[in-house]
Amino acid sequence: MSLLIKDVRLEGATTSIYIEGNTIAAVGGKARVEADTVLDGKGKAAIPGFVNTHTHAAMALLRSYADDLPLQEWLEKAIWPREAKIEPEDIYWGTKLACLEMIKGGTTTFNDMYFHMDQAARAVKEMGLRAVLSEGFIDNRDADLGQQLLKKQGSILKKIEGVGTDRVKAALGPHSLYTVSRESLQAMKELSDTKGYLVHFHLAETKREVEDCLSEQGMRPVKYVESLGLLSRQLLAAHCCWLEPDEVDLLARDGVRVSYCPVSNMNLAAGAMPYRALREAGVLVSLGTDGPASNNNLDMLESMKFAALLQKFASGDPTVAPASEVYEMATLGGARALGLDCGLIEEGRLADIALIDLRRAELNPAHDLKSLLVYSAHGNVVDTVICDGQVLMKGRRVPGEAEIVRRAAEAGQSLASRE
Amino acid sequence: MSLLIKDVRLEGATTSIYIEGNTIAAVGGKARVEADTVLDGKGKAAIPGFVNTHTHAAMALLRSYADDLPLQEWLEKAIWPREAKIEPEDIYWGTKLACLEMIKGGTTTFNDMYFHMDQAARAVKEMGLRAVLSEGFIDNRDADLGQQLLKKQGSILKKIEGVGTDRVKAALGPHSLYTVSRESLQAMKELSDTKGYLVHFHLAETKREVEDCLSEQGMRPVKYVESLGLLSRQLLAAHCCWLEPDEVDLLARDGVRVSYCPVSNMNLAAGAMPYRALREAGVLVSLGTDGPASNNNLDMLESMKFAALLQKFASGDPTVAPASEVYEMATLGGARALGLDCGLIEEGRLADIALIDLRRAELNPAHDLKSLLVYSAHGNVVDTVICDGQVLMKGRRVPGEAEIVRRAAEAGQSLASRE
Repeated sequence: MSLLIKDVRLEGATTSIYIEGNTIAAVGGKARVEADTVLDGKGKAAIPGFVNTHTHAAMALLRSYADDLPLQEWLEKAIWPREAKIEPEDIYWGTKLACLEMIKGGTTTFNDMYFHMDQAARAVKEMGLRAVLSEGFIDNRDADLGQQLLKKQGSILKKIEGVGTDRVKAALGPHSLYTVSRESLQAMKELSDTKGYLVHFHLAETKREVEDCLSEQGMRPVKYVESLGLLSRQLLAAHCCWLEPDEVDLLARDGVRVSYCPVSNMNLAAGAMPYRALREAGVLVSLGTDGPASNNNLDMLESMKFAALLQKFASGDPTVAPASEVYEMATLGGARALGLDCGLIEEGRLADIALIDLRRAELNPAHDLKSLLVYSAHGNVVDTVICDGQVLMKGRRVPGEAEIVRRAAEAGQSLASRE
Repeated sequence: MSLLIKDVRLEGATTSIYIEGNTIAAVGGKARVEADTVLDGKGKAAIPGFVNTHTHAAMALLRSYADDLPLQEWLEKAIWPREAKIEPEDIYWGTKLACLEMIKGGTTTFNDMYFHMDQAARAVKEMGLRAVLSEGFIDNRDADLGQQLLKKQGSILKKIEGVGTDRVKAALGPHSLYTVSRESLQAMKELSDTKGYLVHFHLAETKREVEDCLSEQGMRPVKYVESLGLLSRQLLAAHCCWLEPDEVDLLARDGVRVSYCPVSNMNLAAGAMPYRALREAGVLVSLGTDGPASNNNLDMLESMKFAALLQKFASGDPTVAPASEVYEMATLGGARALGLDCGLIEEGRLADIALIDLRRAELNPAHDLKSLLVYSAHGNVVDTVICDGQVLMKGRRVPGEAEIVRRAAEAGQSLASRE
């Protein structure tokens, strides 16, 4: 199967992109003039599909269920009691809805941690996106419970890996240092070392987390992770709002990947990730929306604007986190963080592409496309989405969308009122 | 002429809204069953059109022209040299584009300060929006120059008032304390007292502005405004990031209206308006996008999210600026700030209404509509816009939009390269 995008804008020039199977086979002069499917790129720009490196997609079901609350009250009185009632089928519909929303906003890959992730795998397979899925692991620092959960995790990993598409990969999801025992974290490390799994967790999100770690472990979070042998290129740490300079150096030294979640961090008043220090130290920073119950959407274009503006505001310097850096964070940065060969439109890369409708009011005049995407645009500027060489959306239409919204809305209403 | 919106969601119930001329004549049981025009409200919610209380609309022409720069460099090297080349026709097309973008995002009223505002008045009249327009007044604190400019202002006020629609009102626009002489500010006060004009200016936006005012006038900005006799219900002050408690009390005492511009304040690293203190003191706070060169869009739904999240982040308290307060800020708060009888859907109010498409992915499940609008939505959730009883957009289509985008893009490109 081949796909040709004709007469499309790409980095300032008009060109064509030729896709064979799931791969970009040629760009520009080398692109063929015919293909099984031809898309007219006139009035559109091609960009890599966005890579969302931290979310809990099915939390879309609890979107707008409980906002404007203190973090602990939000978790203890609103979110956890509802999560205790979640059924596998809820996760399927919640993830379908989240995938639909991501497609509508030009996201082609996401890194997800939640529950019943075999159901998420089924939803992702059907929706056509690329995803790295980890079953959220919480043993409340009870090593015996951890032993049982590790077995359960093994069976879910198998189900995720058996879903039957290369677009879906499994990862390990120990929730955080404060919810997982040392023994379980060490078991995760061994599993990651042996099988090559990415480890995805929350790190240094709030000041309280750091203080608790200091009093309980006698060291700051990154030092504790180091003591477990977990600092490596296989570790993706979300948030990282509270880092001392020596912790930044440790993350850089060992190639740890960081997912910056500016909307969630502002919403929950968690803090501002020290972007400039991380960048200067050479840490790979990517971008995440976090779950749609704390964001409350999955719009990477919106998150790019928050990413830039939070850094400018928190540092008092409007030159920090310029559009070009934030754009790269949301595309190639995410691809590198997840070890995937997408995030750039060039020969040999995976064919994960979004086409932007350049005729929209907020994208004109067009003095600088990256600035427009970061500061002026939302997900709705995306006209067409291609993932793994397949057209998932064209003219903003996704097959079956009304049914997905309806079924997910029913699941969400049912979850909210379930006894 | 009459207009009926049938079977639409309004504050949790399904109802009908009947409009006669430019006024909401009936809501609910009292609404007629027939009208000259009938809109099907199924799957939609009716909300008041948004009121944007601080912008420089035609700066849309310079959107994405110069981002990520320090404020002074941005103004002196990028914006001012281009503004010196602006022609009246540019303002016309820039304002048309801005109006189009505002309609697309559900904004029905805006408070605008820029140049050649007779051209802006012409654009607003054609586009069907409601606007309060002030010619930006800058005499560089030269009272003699101020005298000449006051005459010029008089002639522009006449042109704005003569444009021939009640939707357009004129106001006075002394740019700021640091760009306008004491004598001109006093002349503005007299004109406002005699003719009832709203005075619209920038106040206490940056820390530097406060420091300069202290060293040059021997007092902080609000005290200086008080000494000029300008503190009143006729004053709309944009930004107000840097206020001491006694300044907050003065604003409250005299009924000054504040326009909060969170996106611009973060973008330029200006500061965070002390929202909680203003609210507790009883100051009327409304919401502005600021101009699209420092925002870089005119999306009030996006600005609502920044409004809430900036307050949560800056105060460290996620309960501050909850969705319901921010929603009111962007609707009724703006209407009250501008002295207009819109901002609520009830009998007797001006018929300025936006219909929201409730079937979109990011608006489901719908546990709380105001939370969804503030935290999940962007302008694109708006399906239909009615202003002054006229339908300006239906099914997201605005008559003539392609031509407006094309002509404004040409004007912007020409302005960027003009010798």
